[in-house]
Amino acid sequence: MANVAKKVSWSGRDRDDDEDGRAGETTPLLNGSGPGAAGSGRQETEVPRQRPNEIPHNEKLLSLKYESLDYDNSENQLFLEEERRINHAAFRTVEIKRWVICAMIGILTGLVACFIDIVVENLAGLKYRVVKDNIDKFTTKGGLSFSLLLWATLNASVVMVGSLIVAFIEPVAAGSGIPQIKCYLNGVKIPHVVRLKTLVIKVCGVILSVVGGLAVGKEGPMIHSGSVIAAGISQGRSTSLKRDFKIFEYFRRDTEKRDFVSAGAAAGVSAAFGAPVGGVLFSLEEGASFWNQFLTWRIFFASMISTFTLNSVLSVYHGNAWDLSSPGLINFGRFDNEKMGYTIQEIPIFIFMGVVGGILGALFNALNYWLTMFRIRYIHRPCLQVVEAMLVAAVTATVGFVMIYCSRDCQPIQGSSVAYPLQLFCADGEYNSMATAFFNTPEKSVVNLFHDPPGSYNPMTLGMFTLMYFFLACWTYGLTVSAGVFIPSLLIGAAWGRLFGISLSYLTKGSIWADPGKYALMGAAAQLGGIVRMTLSLTVIMMEATGNVTYGFPIMLVLMTAKIVGDYFVEGLYDMHIQLQSVPFLHWEAPVTSHSLTAREVMSTPVTCLRRIERVGTVVDILSDTSSNHNGFPVVESNPDTTQAGWVFLGRGCSWAGPPRAGCSGDPHTRRLLQVAGLRGLILRSQLIVLLKHKVFVERANLSLVQRRLKLKDFRDAYPRFPPIQSIHVSQDERECMIDLSEFMNPSPYTVPQEASLPRVFKLFRALGLRHLVVVDNRNEVVGMVTRKDLARYRLGKEGLEELSLAQT
Amino acid sequence: MANVAKKVSWSGRDRDDDEDGRAGETTPLLNGSGPGAAGSGRQETEVPRQRPNEIPHNEKLLSLKYESLDYDNSENQLFLEEERRINHAAFRTVEIKRWVICAMIGILTGLVACFIDIVVENLAGLKYRVVKDNIDKFTTKGGLSFSLLLWATLNASVVMVGSLIVAFIEPVAAGSGIPQIKCYLNGVKIPHVVRLKTLVIKVCGVILSVVGGLAVGKEGPMIHSGSVIAAGISQGRSTSLKRDFKIFEYFRRDTEKRDFVSAGAAAGVSAAFGAPVGGVLFSLEEGASFWNQFLTWRIFFASMISTFTLNSVLSVYHGNAWDLSSPGLINFGRFDNEKMGYTIQEIPIFIFMGVVGGILGALFNALNYWLTMFRIRYIHRPCLQVVEAMLVAAVTATVGFVMIYCSRDCQPIQGSSVAYPLQLFCADGEYNSMATAFFNTPEKSVVNLFHDPPGSYNPMTLGMFTLMYFFLACWTYGLTVSAGVFIPSLLIGAAWGRLFGISLSYLTKGSIWADPGKYALMGAAAQLGGIVRMTLSLTVIMMEATGNVTYGFPIMLVLMTAKIVGDYFVEGLYDMHIQLQSVPFLHWEAPVTSHSLTAREVMSTPVTCLRRIERVGTVVDILSDTSSNHNGFPVVESNPDTTQAGWVFLGRGCSWAGPPRAGCSGDPHTRRLLQVAGLRGLILRSQLIVLLKHKVFVERANLSLVQRRLKLKDFRDAYPRFPPIQSIHVSQDERECMIDLSEFMNPSPYTVPQEASLPRVFKLFRALGLRHLVVVDNRNEVVGMVTRKDLARYRLGKEGLEELSLAQT
Repeated sequence: MANVAKKVSWSGRDRDDDEDGRAGETTPLLNGSGPGAAGSGRQETEVPRQRPNEIPHNEKLLSLKYESLDYDNSENQLFLEEERRINHAAFRTVEIKRWVICAMIGILTGLVACFIDIVVENLAGLKYRVVKDNIDKFTTKGGLSFSLLLWATLNASVVMVGSLIVAFIEPVAAGSGIPQIKCYLNGVKIPHVVRLKTLVIKVCGVILSVVGGLAVGKEGPMIHSGSVIAAGISQGRSTSLKRDFKIFEYFRRDTEKRDFVSAGAAAGVSAAFGAPVGGVLFSLEEGASFWNQFLTWRIFFASMISTFTLNSVLSVYHGNAWDLSSPGLINFGRFDNEKMGYTIQEIPIFIFMGVVGGILGALFNALNYWLTMFRIRYIHRPCLQVVEAMLVAAVTATVGFVMIYCSRDCQPIQGSSVAYPLQLFCADGEYNSMATAFFNTPEKSVVNLFHDPPGSYNPMTLGMFTLMYFFLACWTYGLTVSAGVFIPSLLIGAAWGRLFGISLSYLTKGSIWADPGKYALMGAAAQLGGIVRMTLSLTVIMMEATGNVTYGFPIMLVLMTAKIVGDYFVEGLYDMHIQLQSVPFLHWEAPVTSHSLTAREVMSTPVTCLRRIERVGTVVDILSDTSSNHNGFPVVESNPDTTQAGWVFLGRGCSWAGPPRAGCSGDPHTRRLLQVAGLRGLILRSQLIVLLKHKVFVERANLSLVQRRLKLKDFRDAYPRFPPIQSIHVSQDERECMIDLSEFMNPSPYTVPQEASLPRVFKLFRALGLRHLVVVDNRNEVVGMVTRKDLARYRLGKEGLEELSLAQT
Repeated sequence: MANVAKKVSWSGRDRDDDEDGRAGETTPLLNGSGPGAAGSGRQETEVPRQRPNEIPHNEKLLSLKYESLDYDNSENQLFLEEERRINHAAFRTVEIKRWVICAMIGILTGLVACFIDIVVENLAGLKYRVVKDNIDKFTTKGGLSFSLLLWATLNASVVMVGSLIVAFIEPVAAGSGIPQIKCYLNGVKIPHVVRLKTLVIKVCGVILSVVGGLAVGKEGPMIHSGSVIAAGISQGRSTSLKRDFKIFEYFRRDTEKRDFVSAGAAAGVSAAFGAPVGGVLFSLEEGASFWNQFLTWRIFFASMISTFTLNSVLSVYHGNAWDLSSPGLINFGRFDNEKMGYTIQEIPIFIFMGVVGGILGALFNALNYWLTMFRIRYIHRPCLQVVEAMLVAAVTATVGFVMIYCSRDCQPIQGSSVAYPLQLFCADGEYNSMATAFFNTPEKSVVNLFHDPPGSYNPMTLGMFTLMYFFLACWTYGLTVSAGVFIPSLLIGAAWGRLFGISLSYLTKGSIWADPGKYALMGAAAQLGGIVRMTLSLTVIMMEATGNVTYGFPIMLVLMTAKIVGDYFVEGLYDMHIQLQSVPFLHWEAPVTSHSLTAREVMSTPVTCLRRIERVGTVVDILSDTSSNHNGFPVVESNPDTTQAGWVFLGRGCSWAGPPRAGCSGDPHTRRLLQVAGLRGLILRSQLIVLLKHKVFVERANLSLVQRRLKLKDFRDAYPRFPPIQSIHVSQDERECMIDLSEFMNPSPYTVPQEASLPRVFKLFRALGLRHLVVVDNRNEVVGMVTRKDLARYRLGKEGLEELSLAQT
């Protein structure tokens, strides 16, 4: 069945693309592939011409523009020589450096979180005071529309700045950054995602979004911030700042960097929610495939340092220096064990709340999906994006204002946790209850809903608030601003949860005494779970944020129910956005029904191979070939005769990317030579580029001469931004030189036989974090290559296994 | 260097062993290998004869008696056919079954924990009441030596029963079972470890040990119990009971069973400490190598159900049905947030406590190491073991009695958490404070030390108690009884921690107000961390057991310090015992300095290979060869001519285990044939046994006839106790038949080239949980085989890389 689907989706391409285009890792498909390739064959070339302003998008596409990270060390001679030189003591130094880096990650992430928190608190405080004064002034003398105007304008202008910097300076800083970090940890290279510039924009952006009164949180972006900090520190240099501190050079490779980024993400979660264990679990749940005890312990260390730093600094800032009472950006406040325990009878109720959360979450995601499709099609110009963000900001303020204006829910001010009590039309000594929810940062609203004493809100207020905030939050997520979805989700859930608790008491005539705060907590968990579908890590984050393990079991039940129910309808929000970006994301396991596929059907073939001693011109030509932008090349044994003749040697599954030459394929002579075309190694584009740049080659006449030696340092210095092949000049004479790859190739690449089933290939690929997996036949000859996109293409749809199309979107 | 060591340790063997002995997985080395093989060459044959009662033991040995579990599915035709038949809906059923099994594991583990708790509570209560009455009686009228005698006799007789059942019925039930489960999850098959009989003995044993007043806990054994329950339920049958419920047949293989055992271990931890997240982390830290989201979530589910079941049942039992206040076997009680927070100044103090814990832990482990060596040498007969256990029980009672007798630390009874207050020589209304520590189950003593108000113990009492209990606990661990070391460690640590807190207040003249309970907690963490060296999971377990996340950071610091300091001296207790058993345990990573070794040096060679169509006689001979008890055989392509001739076909790295034949190796004819001796697959001993048992072969004359078809069910029914080859009768006629392995072999075994470095091989092997890894050359010909012992042999010693010797101990 899968094969049939394959044929259909490939039908629009010409023969060349079909044969060569899939080889290697990222292959631009030149024609008829991008827009609507998976649609019916006839329409696909016409659509783009008819509506040029619309970028057609199809969710059944897999983009080829994303490259893979390489978590498999290239164990070439240089690497092994270095490793063998390093003795035991030196390894201990490396280990200590790792710990130091983790500590620094924790400290810096904590400080960034503090910075965000303090700035947001002050700016938002300023804004709310200004608006409150204005409202108070106009409440008595009429003309509240001026207040509305002031509020809306303030919000819109702040959000405009936040949106401008994101849209024009660094678009990857938009959103919460969690999908991007998920992808990064999964092994997908998202351009610019861990740059310093991104961090700066992200931090400023999130401050402006929250101050701008959008329905967003500042917690999600902390995960992205932590990751950037980790990537920056661990490399000991910043390309944005053009500074190289010449430290931590050992860690300049994808494997090590990924480990630190995991720690950074964990530190981010930890700082955001005061949840160090939750942070570790988040990192593992989203990123790690190979669990390593030492790594996990380091991640935990970074998390702990991060929450501790935040806690110390905020405690000092709040004036109670030694108290350590602010472990996270948001604290759910203290749930009292004794008053708020749960009984076994309540468990079915919690499960029901999970179901509601799942349904509402699915609704949220479905709405957001349509909205995102709309945005991809019509709102793809930065100016439009900024305008949309401003519009949302203004509408949010307006909705809030109207709701507050219309609400007649007055509550007495007593001791009161309300930061900016709006009196409006209430009697003296009372405040408008709707305003505690709208006229406040969302974090504070959440805590209020959890802890305000019973009776603080009337059901109507909660109902209206839930309804409005639901749509606002849904509209907001996906705007071109830095912002998280955690807090709005919690807020929606807390509102309907509290409402649910109140109704329950009311309906059962008080026979079930439902503490509204507890139900608000469960509702928050249900709603968040229904939207993001995280599991273990979210349970622990919620547990840690409440500072109370008692609620572990009901929270787990609620989250699990919400996930099961939600998954029945649509995917989780993050996964949905990853899919909408057509990212070749590898899930945990191959689709269950994919045992019918083997490596032979999955692999890309033929593969561009290199000989162990190769002509420089050939290498340059292959690298320059834009139609097949391959990143990894199997190195095969070359028959000395053909080497001398300068022939391109072709294995059965090997091809050469240049123009066809005589004797290259098919003829009996070549076929016979194939007997010795065994795989010898694998070399990466980046390595070849460095070799060419340093002119590591010898003249053909002097093959016996030793070619120039390179050090591992040369490769590390170029990492991670290797120059493009176009920037390297190779003269005509040099083209005729030879290059010996033996020393630089990885002599033991992982291989699979052609008969291996897809799940088996997938397991190997995923467990080891590979980028290239060579498929060989019984004689160890190269017959194909499996890369990330070959595996990510297969997915379990509604009607069984389906195959995504590849496109250069 | 490694190579030199290799030659020395192998010098005592004859040529045959050296050549053939190492091939395959478990190879009995017939002479000169077992005892003292790593000693100097001259002594090694004499030592065993001189002292027959002593079993010589050398820690630099690796036992060959342990087999490996196989976490790599054999993806042969049968398996693939089944998987392809199963559609999407059926997979969902399988998935639901997995959840159901996890729920059942949780419930049963919780119930077993309840059973243990209730029985221990009642029996121990009975014992303490009897002794207390007796003491009370004799205190006034003199003759307390009768009381001592009564106490000691009671203890010794109870422990005798507990020790008898362990020593004579199921020795694997001794100890906490944590090392065994660690090994199992690591992939080592420990005989009998997950049998129902073991569970029964374990449960009875632990009850008797605790009631017998030994310095042991009932928590560690829960992990083992949970694992057995998981293994039993997931297989849907019990060999001990000879019942097959014909359910869950899909899960009858090592891969699936391991996953469930992970869940069982987590459920055990969860029930023991009320720490579901800690349980999950324990499982992952000790067992998992490949993190899988769904698996983790299921493990978490089992853990949650387990603690919830325990909580519900115990709450009902204690009469406050809906209260849910007993989440674990031990609860550290409620630490009040506000009263017991910590300040930044205390952090250096906590770190210092970590150092102390590390040193004391190392001392504990070192003493226990010598003791264990002594036991291995001299106390290896069951009778002696029982006598030793009785002796320890009597001594424990005596020490306790003497301490209580000599103590003059009287405290007023007030409200009092003391269960059995012994008045002894105290005034009326007072009780003997030493007795709260000794005359009590250790769990209660721990909680008392955490929560008794300041001033409940005088420093002298705590000091003496720490000293005595330290040696008692050290002596006790390793006895032939079921017992855990968690609680004694916590108790020792709580005692000196409390002492430390009191001293601190005293020394600083009250300027540092150290709440003794908080310091007791930190001391407990430090001591436990110093002994078992667990990291992340222990932090979370401690956090969950205190029901309070505030202490997360200091507990982490303490545990980390204790680990670093302790590791400087000796290994953790569990690792030490694993090593003393010479188990081929694979750590997380290959030794850091092992890049100098390649697969070529590490692998076993030559390998016994089979042809794709093999003569039955040859198969039987190979399987029957006791000198090379191989478990996996590469299948190579056979030239049709040689097949007909009944030749044994030899690849370069292949050998045949029988007597040498003409033309088998070396001569040019054979060498030429090798050109086509590529690897085709891998078949396991267990599979061959099933094939032979079902007579799946055809006469040579009728090769065209189709041989009998087997179903996957035939293999599953035989799992996991495949009959030995000796039990299968093959007639002389049948020996001449042929057997076609194509359908049963795994056609895509994982391979590595010879040049791959040891860390690379290790990573592949460990990440995928392999049992056999075939080493091939450039032409895909078999040159060697890497199994667990080949990798486990290399280890990082004090002077760099060292190599263990292999022995059939």
